[in-house]
Amino acid sequence: MLFVRTREGKERLVRHLDEGNRAKTLSAPAVAILAYDVDFHEQMPTVFPARGEMLRAAFADQTEKRESLAVYNSALQTGVFLLAVRAAGLAAGPMAGFDRAGVDGEFFSGTSWRSHLVVNIGHPGADPWFPRLPRVPVEDAIAYA
Amino acid sequence: MLFVRTREGKERLVRHLDEGNRAKTLSAPAVAILAYDVDFHEQMPTVFPARGEMLRAAFADQTEKRESLAVYNSALQTGVFLLAVRAAGLAAGPMAGFDRAGVDGEFFSGTSWRSHLVVNIGHPGADPWFPRLPRVPVEDAIAYA
Repeated sequence: MLFVRTREGKERLVRHLDEGNRAKTLSAPAVAILAYDVDFHEQMPTVFPARGEMLRAAFADQTEKRESLAVYNSALQTGVFLLAVRAAGLAAGPMAGFDRAGVDGEFFSGTSWRSHLVVNIGHPGADPWFPRLPRVPVEDAIAYA
Repeated sequence: MLFVRTREGKERLVRHLDEGNRAKTLSAPAVAILAYDVDFHEQMPTVFPARGEMLRAAFADQTEKRESLAVYNSALQTGVFLLAVRAAGLAAGPMAGFDRAGVDGEFFSGTSWRSHLVVNIGHPGADPWFPRLPRVPVEDAIAYA
């Protein structure tokens, strides 16, 4: 997770955002760039000491599997992160409308981090909300067995 | 989301779980099978009326893009779901150790739902927790710009 708080950092970031996301990002007190680590297996000896070396070796050649696991787990933790921001009394504005390769080149060059979401964080301005959109009917989304 | 609550349903489910996940699943009061919908674009006219038909058409031939978006968004909502279960005072035990094709054939045959996580829900038994594992040091996980 990279927190962008300086004016200079935000200017470097907004170049890679879709046009409609730029002004609000420049005005946000903090912006989080959420990333996953495609080389997370290098951390296995740290986070799972009992089988760390075994897991690190098992994942070493599994580039695609590592990427899909990293995306899944980062997305899951993104759900937790957005609620954590809101639980702290702040608003979180997640945006997928940006050039990932551009952001990665700008901030994560030479690392194994890959951006997947940009989240504006702060207090909302006046009248900031869109009307709530309709949902899929609950009987189409939840089943029982 | 498919909630499995009957004994018969749990017996159909545990056949497709890894050995170590079976007993606890049979004993859980409820088990949620979390799935994503690879044909979510069919719901676009419902959930985004202003551009629903346009988006449905735009996604119609994008099978791979739909799958990756469905996985990402389902994983994000899984983070929210696990916290919701715990906020209701229950324990949530997520498990990825199962045969996805087997579960899909058993419960989602002929549908566009694809299982990605099985979550036991209930009150934990005596002494149910593993010791907390170490984390990646915060200075390796969070950066500032």
